[in-house]
Amino acid sequence: MLIELQPDTTQSEKNRLIDRLIKMGFELREVGDEKLTIVKGVDTLVQIREFENLPHVKRVHPIQMRYKLASRITQNEDTVISIKGVSIGGGTLFLCAGPCAIESTEQIRVCAAASRSSGATALRGGCFKPRTSPYEFQGLGEEGIVLLEDAGKEFGLITICEVMDALQVDFAADHIDILQVGARNMQNFTLLKKLGKTKNPILLKRGFSATYQELLMAAEYIMSEGNPYVILCERGIRTFETYTRNTLDLSAVPALRELTHLPIIVDPSHGTGVRSLILPMARAAVAAGADGLMIEIHPDPDLSISDAKQTINFKEFSRLSQEVMAVHRAINPIR
Amino acid sequence: MLIELQPDTTQSEKNRLIDRLIKMGFELREVGDEKLTIVKGVDTLVQIREFENLPHVKRVHPIQMRYKLASRITQNEDTVISIKGVSIGGGTLFLCAGPCAIESTEQIRVCAAASRSSGATALRGGCFKPRTSPYEFQGLGEEGIVLLEDAGKEFGLITICEVMDALQVDFAADHIDILQVGARNMQNFTLLKKLGKTKNPILLKRGFSATYQELLMAAEYIMSEGNPYVILCERGIRTFETYTRNTLDLSAVPALRELTHLPIIVDPSHGTGVRSLILPMARAAVAAGADGLMIEIHPDPDLSISDAKQTINFKEFSRLSQEVMAVHRAINPIR
Amino acid sequence: MLIELQPDTTQSEKNRLIDRLIKMGFELREVGDEKLTIVKGVDTLVQIREFENLPHVKRVHPIQMRYKLASRITQNEDTVISIKGVSIGGGTLFLCAGPCAIESTEQIRVCAAASRSSGATALRGGCFKPRTSPYEFQGLGEEGIVLLEDAGKEFGLITICEVMDALQVDFAADHIDILQVGARNMQNFTLLKKLGKTKNPILLKRGFSATYQELLMAAEYIMSEGNPYVILCERGIRTFETYTRNTLDLSAVPALRELTHLPIIVDPSHGTGVRSLILPMARAAVAAGADGLMIEIHPDPDLSISDAKQTINFKEFSRLSQEVMAVHRAINPIR
Amino acid sequence: MLIELQPDTTQSEKNRLIDRLIKMGFELREVGDEKLTIVKGVDTLVQIREFENLPHVKRVHPIQMRYKLASRITQNEDTVISIKGVSIGGGTLFLCAGPCAIESTEQIRVCAAASRSSGATALRGGCFKPRTSPYEFQGLGEEGIVLLEDAGKEFGLITICEVMDALQVDFAADHIDILQVGARNMQNFTLLKKLGKTKNPILLKRGFSATYQELLMAAEYIMSEGNPYVILCERGIRTFETYTRNTLDLSAVPALRELTHLPIIVDPSHGTGVRSLILPMARAAVAAGADGLMIEIHPDPDLSISDAKQTINFKEFSRLSQEVMAVHRAINPIR
Repeated sequence: MLIELQPDTTQSEKNRLIDRLIKMGFELREVGDEKLTIVKGVDTLVQIREFENLPHVKRVHPIQMRYKLASRITQNEDTVISIKGVSIGGGTLFLCAGPCAIESTEQIRVCAAASRSSGATALRGGCFKPRTSPYEFQGLGEEGIVLLEDAGKEFGLITICEVMDALQVDFAADHIDILQVGARNMQNFTLLKKLGKTKNPILLKRGFSATYQELLMAAEYIMSEGNPYVILCERGIRTFETYTRNTLDLSAVPALRELTHLPIIVDPSHGTGVRSLILPMARAAVAAGADGLMIEIHPDPDLSISDAKQTINFKEFSRLSQEVMAVHRAINPIR
Repeated sequence: MLIELQPDTTQSEKNRLIDRLIKMGFELREVGDEKLTIVKGVDTLVQIREFENLPHVKRVHPIQMRYKLASRITQNEDTVISIKGVSIGGGTLFLCAGPCAIESTEQIRVCAAASRSSGATALRGGCFKPRTSPYEFQGLGEEGIVLLEDAGKEFGLITICEVMDALQVDFAADHIDILQVGARNMQNFTLLKKLGKTKNPILLKRGFSATYQELLMAAEYIMSEGNPYVILCERGIRTFETYTRNTLDLSAVPALRELTHLPIIVDPSHGTGVRSLILPMARAAVAAGADGLMIEIHPDPDLSISDAKQTINFKEFSRLSQEVMAVHRAINPIR
Repeated sequence: MLIELQPDTTQSEKNRLIDRLIKMGFELREVGDEKLTIVKGVDTLVQIREFENLPHVKRVHPIQMRYKLASRITQNEDTVISIKGVSIGGGTLFLCAGPCAIESTEQIRVCAAASRSSGATALRGGCFKPRTSPYEFQGLGEEGIVLLEDAGKEFGLITICEVMDALQVDFAADHIDILQVGARNMQNFTLLKKLGKTKNPILLKRGFSATYQELLMAAEYIMSEGNPYVILCERGIRTFETYTRNTLDLSAVPALRELTHLPIIVDPSHGTGVRSLILPMARAAVAAGADGLMIEIHPDPDLSISDAKQTINFKEFSRLSQEVMAVHRAINPIR
Repeated sequence: MLIELQPDTTQSEKNRLIDRLIKMGFELREVGDEKLTIVKGVDTLVQIREFENLPHVKRVHPIQMRYKLASRITQNEDTVISIKGVSIGGGTLFLCAGPCAIESTEQIRVCAAASRSSGATALRGGCFKPRTSPYEFQGLGEEGIVLLEDAGKEFGLITICEVMDALQVDFAADHIDILQVGARNMQNFTLLKKLGKTKNPILLKRGFSATYQELLMAAEYIMSEGNPYVILCERGIRTFETYTRNTLDLSAVPALRELTHLPIIVDPSHGTGVRSLILPMARAAVAAGADGLMIEIHPDPDLSISDAKQTINFKEFSRLSQEVMAVHRAINPIR
């Protein structure tokens, strides 16, 4: 439920109203100067009219949606996330690159150097790998996290790493800038709540059969615990088409833009699973209005331990970077 | 089966080989100067080695794919289709617009004028409407075709109209430039064969649960009857996501580009089914490398008899046209 | 729109009302004694209240659904189709078997004999084959239809054959009992309308990405042309699972049962595409409440020209027949 | 990799071979008397031939599949799980019922009584609820687990409860018989590994966009940690059809039967999401060969806190129980 206050409400009047609502058993968030959102409490059982009779209340919106903090209705202006001088959202193009799995100091360092020189501002690298089969490489774990942190520092890049479990969060949160939730964990609610208690921005990947609404409700799990810094990531959905590993659903970008104020980036590497499609689909993602891209790179993709088929080399990444920036420039003056 | 000839084969040697193969019961097509494709005949039962023993044959490729003429293996260079000075494929951006259903002389004329002034070179308009329910408006039929033809002539636009049935083909072929096969009819093989016998270019829409391979085999039905002028159109597939009417699968553009030499265009109107998503997805389609776009426009979309939710007005189309051309210019110098 | 008449309306009063409505431009059907359905006419533009002011009208139901004749709302009792002593719907189990494609007199005769001896009452056989690639076997055509007719007569079986095109309908309607619409043609509206003008029962297969509603609207196309004898057939939908050729959606059986009075049968051969799954899924279909089954059989499935992987031999069919009848007996006393 | 031993290998010869392989760095399991499976170790990098040169080795099978312990290749006979006299798998029909969410002592007690009197041998009840929105009822937690345990003891039923997180496992494992992994957590690998270290049987639900192969690899995560007692559960997949909440994929039952020796049960409540479809689809599941069913019941479904639409009352469950047993008897003599 969204409570819109009268424009002339003073801060002390507002505070008194908030106190009263808290005593009534509700949990609240202030949304800008003139709105309050009730994020917890049995709002469906309470009459809207009772709220409208409270002092200073102009109008009450019964938010039917099962997410509120993530909704553009409660916050109209775009969220811009800033970390160490890097902005995500708000008109700039965020470019993140790195290997699917961190394999060695040398590997992550050369990836960092290549990312940096091609214009990326963030370095990704998998340390805990969610592998479909238990017999596949599971990642270097905390050792990998330290390698990633070091490479990020050396090359002046912010860092992104997936966490698969609430138990991995604290260590990763101390060493890595942005914590990623993978597609398979989009509805791992314990993990989401734990991440909601950190101060790190969270990169939340869309589950491969999740609707836009479900993605936003997963974001809401993080936000309702107190962490407003969620970056949404489209990474392909599962369909009948088998030529591509997933079907990259770029309509998610403008559709989510309507529904939420959160930044939206795209991962064309997982989203297509086909090396030759990454470049054109990266361009398309930016043209659709994405705030950024996440790209898998490797010094020698064919030798990559995981996801070799969807990883590009440094030269290909350099070209990708140039082309997506050209598209970004082309559409930005006219947006 | 693809027969590669020795580079020094003379035309008369080639002709003698062709005669011999025809006498053996095969149907052939010449592919460039140095290749022959056997398009009909029991090729799986015949030993490849027997073909390799024929004179002037350099190598024989057993094409496993169930399409041949549409394949990039048999023709490497892109097909460019030219009609009345308008090119489809080959680097230019083809822009086609018009109403979902033709309603009146006035309606199609104002749409034609708006299309023309915004840079479109083709006018589309539905005359035979494939409607899910028998109680919905079924189109103006042949009367609509004449209206479309007249509007095309008046405003210097080539024309596109869907045909739903083999019986509608002859009349439409006489009056309209490009005949369209709708998504529901992608595997209406009688219709495809009939269209294969016309000389008009055919716009073939992907069925909403058709794979890339199936789309190419449908094109092959047309091509194997003698009509090489097929334009493929991605228009969204059916998935679990309900926010959009269909999921526009833009990966189809670069993926089909690898598999076929045929031009590939995109219909973001049907592909999203949501008015506000048409502009960003049109930009994305061009950025993904599409050869053209097909857009539903209407003087007053809310009054449109069909597909109101996915139709934009003339002003929106004008903006779309400018933005997609900017994206096209941005990616073309570097492709 | 459904018009409910007052219970004491006489036949002549009813006739006068019908005349009046026809003069107003509507096309009608009588539904039982006390209901009229307006099947054609711009009912959304007409005020319901105007209809309620007509004499003898008790109530007017604005049928939101885009199908009417197929709906259980307009006809509550199950439709039972009877052809030459064979019933489809209404509590008996209809069993139809035969080869995917008719190959020869001998082949269809042995299939007919095996079908008969295992308890099937209908013989199916493909004559016009809708093949994804133009280079695959396209069927024996009208010659096959005559072979099927002869085999049906010799062995006392009613016959079923797919027609792919309106042009094939007249010949097939003269020689075959039940005409089948394949999944690819479920929305070939010209074909559906043509079949609506025949007197043969129509077996309508669900398109592989069609919803229940769309299947019923396709049935409505046939019924609104005057042919009430439509049999619906679930044959699997397209999903991400690749182990099976399609995902057999057996929930369609009880779900359609709620929505329509038409008989519903299941094709586990196409529905699974895997030989070993046909028997258990045939049992499951009957347990779900299906009115019948359609099974592909062949004297030597591995030599079958088409669909070898989903065809069972005569011994397997005999076992299937026994098992599904046992299931049918088990659930029938308690339904 | 599966190592087949020579038939005359003695136990001491076998032990020596095992020791040698362990020293080479592999982790092994014995499969029956004559087979060894290497479950951990870099088997793809090792030459099969080297293994074949080891003493007593008859043949080496490079298992391409990414699951081994779950595969019918390594264990041909069906796994039968026995808990407190209740068998799951092996020809009997396992029937489990209970409320979606435990709400109170009284509610779970009346559900237990109804389950018992209708022939169920297991009681399910949600304590930790994975809710899509953070604002929905999240379950009674450990308090609910104790209520479930008590009700199970009082009515002589084994108990099943979902755990959502590795942290919930220890407590639940002490109080509940079978621990359930929900569809959203099918690839929560940390949870799976933790469950692999318990001694409780695990009910593993298929993710709503997981393939059969992925379900088996998830089972393998549990089994490779040492817990062989995994029960697979089909509960519907996500497709384009919206009439049902999910599409219950009953082909999974016979398909998984071919691929694995593990018991397979079906949840038609979540699988359809529609109350009226639960009975026919329960019958269909048993007819397809399922080893058991899991059904949501509630004293007054419309008052159920969660999943009201897919919950049946006690009388409906009693009828369901009778009908599925009739189907089970009908197909069992002939299987």
